[in-house]
Amino acid sequence: MANENIRVVLVEPTHPGNIGATARAMANMGLRRLYLVSPKAFPTEDAYARAAGANWVLDEAVVTESLDQAIADCDFLIATTARSRAVDWPSLSPKEAAAKVVEASNAGQVGLLFGRESRGLKNDEIDRCQFLVHIPSDEEFSSLNLASAVLLMAYEMRMLTRQVVPAEPPVEAEYQPANDRQMQGFYRHLETTLSDIDFIKATSSTKLMRKIIRVFNRSRLSVEEVNILRGILSTIQQRRQ
Amino acid sequence: MANENIRVVLVEPTHPGNIGATARAMANMGLRRLYLVSPKAFPTEDAYARAAGANWVLDEAVVTESLDQAIADCDFLIATTARSRAVDWPSLSPKEAAAKVVEASNAGQVGLLFGRESRGLKNDEIDRCQFLVHIPSDEEFSSLNLASAVLLMAYEMRMLTRQVVPAEPPVEAEYQPANDRQMQGFYRHLETTLSDIDFIKATSSTKLMRKIIRVFNRSRLSVEEVNILRGILSTIQQRRQ
Repeated sequence: MANENIRVVLVEPTHPGNIGATARAMANMGLRRLYLVSPKAFPTEDAYARAAGANWVLDEAVVTESLDQAIADCDFLIATTARSRAVDWPSLSPKEAAAKVVEASNAGQVGLLFGRESRGLKNDEIDRCQFLVHIPSDEEFSSLNLASAVLLMAYEMRMLTRQVVPAEPPVEAEYQPANDRQMQGFYRHLETTLSDIDFIKATSSTKLMRKIIRVFNRSRLSVEEVNILRGILSTIQQRRQ
Repeated sequence: MANENIRVVLVEPTHPGNIGATARAMANMGLRRLYLVSPKAFPTEDAYARAAGANWVLDEAVVTESLDQAIADCDFLIATTARSRAVDWPSLSPKEAAAKVVEASNAGQVGLLFGRESRGLKNDEIDRCQFLVHIPSDEEFSSLNLASAVLLMAYEMRMLTRQVVPAEPPVEAEYQPANDRQMQGFYRHLETTLSDIDFIKATSSTKLMRKIIRVFNRSRLSVEEVNILRGILSTIQQRRQ
């Protein structure tokens, strides 16, 4: 596992104590890169108190205004939730997700997204991710503390890498994964093209568009593949009546 | 797992907030029997605040003066630590310990002991236990929050017992993978369409076509997704000049 390629991204955390507890949990499990998207308050004394000495994680934390800024250079993204979702995403257990994160971290930048204390992540935020992790908490009391969710993911990653001694082989010598910005550019191009040919209507296409995006999200496109697919889209746009 | 036979025993907890956070973590993972050995303060508002609604765990918590009273009727005991110990006890990973706890809980009363925030468990307290669990936190920052230690143990127990019941997430249930015939039909349709719009020449396109096919192969399409994608192809064919 290339820990330096893994970032924990808290989206709009409300309670400073949770930021500190997250820093502590990360340090416990050997992680150190924390991103805070529009936190209600940071830095604060409460955060440092709850970090219980893991000050370096807070000192080096990156605060951004938008999620885009926090994940633009990420090649692989995972969203975490303890809730069951109405919309279906490909859902993994923490352990399955940890395996994917560890592997992806050897090839590029990985982001683990955690949502707001009150409402979790929004659907369009989850759409940015390749996988959704479902932490199997009790259905009747599923609301995990934010730092607890971070801890469980980081723990599973740590357990995996402690077992596997040999370093992962590079996925494919020439495979250069597309980062989030490139993927979002591709999806915008795709949506425009599907709208151009009247396959989707701009207003009522969210669900269908999500299904299509999921196909490519799962596939984890390389830069070259994104270029090929966008070449197809441009050709379609040129040829349309 | 016989959850009603499993108790979490906090020995001399100092911070009321940790008691509440422990109750929440237990409820998250389906445990409810909490024993408090000589807590500094209990019950308190802080504890209930941090329990975040898991009030029944605190309401039913058993407060004792001594460890003896808390574990007298236990048949199997496990002690938890994040520290390395000078003295050697038989030491288990959280997952190994969870397996023993789950098994023992079917036969009798099981206690999981967690030590003081500052100093953990004393040697003579660990001596009461059959096994010592070592939570593999980072050597340079090993001090886990008390509720975090409880959470990790309870999580491993829950994951073990969940595996037995094959309750697949809804995604899997509805996911019907496309078979090879359907995939080949899709690929032929794709190739024809790309040829129709002059993106590829029928004669010299093998390598490029293979790259495109690989994207969808990796994604493991469902029947529904193949239908959506073929719908797009048909629309492109209709709209071309």
